[in-house]
Amino acid sequence: MNALHPDNITAGGQKPTVSEPTIQRMPWYLAHVSRLRRQGVERVSTTQMAKELNVDASQIAKDLGALNVRGKTRIGYDVAQLEDALNAVLCFRRRHTAVMLGVGSLGAALISDKGLTRYGLDIIAGFDNDRNKLGATLQTPVYHIDTLPQAAIRLKPEIAIIAVPHDVAQSVADLAVASGIKALWNFTPHRLAQRPGVVIQDTSIYSHLALMYNRMPQ
Amino acid sequence: MNALHPDNITAGGQKPTVSEPTIQRMPWYLAHVSRLRRQGVERVSTTQMAKELNVDASQIAKDLGALNVRGKTRIGYDVAQLEDALNAVLCFRRRHTAVMLGVGSLGAALISDKGLTRYGLDIIAGFDNDRNKLGATLQTPVYHIDTLPQAAIRLKPEIAIIAVPHDVAQSVADLAVASGIKALWNFTPHRLAQRPGVVIQDTSIYSHLALMYNRMPQ
Repeated sequence: MNALHPDNITAGGQKPTVSEPTIQRMPWYLAHVSRLRRQGVERVSTTQMAKELNVDASQIAKDLGALNVRGKTRIGYDVAQLEDALNAVLCFRRRHTAVMLGVGSLGAALISDKGLTRYGLDIIAGFDNDRNKLGATLQTPVYHIDTLPQAAIRLKPEIAIIAVPHDVAQSVADLAVASGIKALWNFTPHRLAQRPGVVIQDTSIYSHLALMYNRMPQ
Repeated sequence: MNALHPDNITAGGQKPTVSEPTIQRMPWYLAHVSRLRRQGVERVSTTQMAKELNVDASQIAKDLGALNVRGKTRIGYDVAQLEDALNAVLCFRRRHTAVMLGVGSLGAALISDKGLTRYGLDIIAGFDNDRNKLGATLQTPVYHIDTLPQAAIRLKPEIAIIAVPHDVAQSVADLAVASGIKALWNFTPHRLAQRPGVVIQDTSIYSHLALMYNRMPQ
């Protein structure tokens, strides 16, 4: 690990340990300061951010305390510096390579989502078992899922995004792990089995849907 | 069934109060029992589910205790009954109407995602400010965003799905609330302002991306 790499924000070259709730709030701060920078605003205080974001100022100050950036009393944070530090701690500026497993409507949409590219994710290939989806009609080539192990040797993807029907999510995840992929981003409601040394991130939009229904008046 | 149990769906048609962490785990159970049912399996025990889902059996038993279904010792739960009860408590069988605000790549994908329909969400119209996106090329008509207040009188949508660029998320959310919509499903990293009587559900895929990066070896 190179201490001079821009993603490292401490002199020792170690990434700071930031709690997961803090990591989850940081994209709010990043979206906010990015907008301020584009509007030409140069300084922002935690009080102003609190008002805009509906988060306690003390919580924001604590979260931003994990960054290598200091706000100044009565002046606040430098917007551009804060944006850089947030991008660094969130690893959004480092490139990460990913393959999309399952190129149905959600998989195809994620491939064409410019937001993911902006946040450091390069989807370099798609895989599907439907021969009608293979080829290069999307901006990313799509191969048959059976060729993943061989393709992974060449492409060396860090992340497999799982957007297949939930019935086959586990077998596709197993194939990805057998192909040497160490991180699985699971968009299915299937609960994937844990594997040693493999990071699993669940993004189940259906469980969020259930949460929203549950909060709505019946 | 004991009608006095606080978690039971009561005769009065009141939904039981289920904690949010439980609600978030229930789609795993639902995906699992739906698969079992399609495979012709009739009974399942919490021990079997625990093994498949990597969740403690005691946690599963406690979560399923919130349902109006009782497992039997050494026999387990009736799979079809459990599936029905999970769909009921998650409100996946009741139809909910939604409008899609922003019909870019993510919005268009969500419109064409059959999974949302299966889980009770009917996206009945899209809205965008880009005149090239207006019309009926998708399975759902797309109107100009400025017409949302008038259209909402006719369509009476319960939910607005926000998939616009994050810079305009707040103004679009304000327009939805002014149009009488009481639930906002926010796919942007912008932190929306709370409004009395309005449910906000955030699904920020970029914050999940940051969580995953944070867990990956650097």
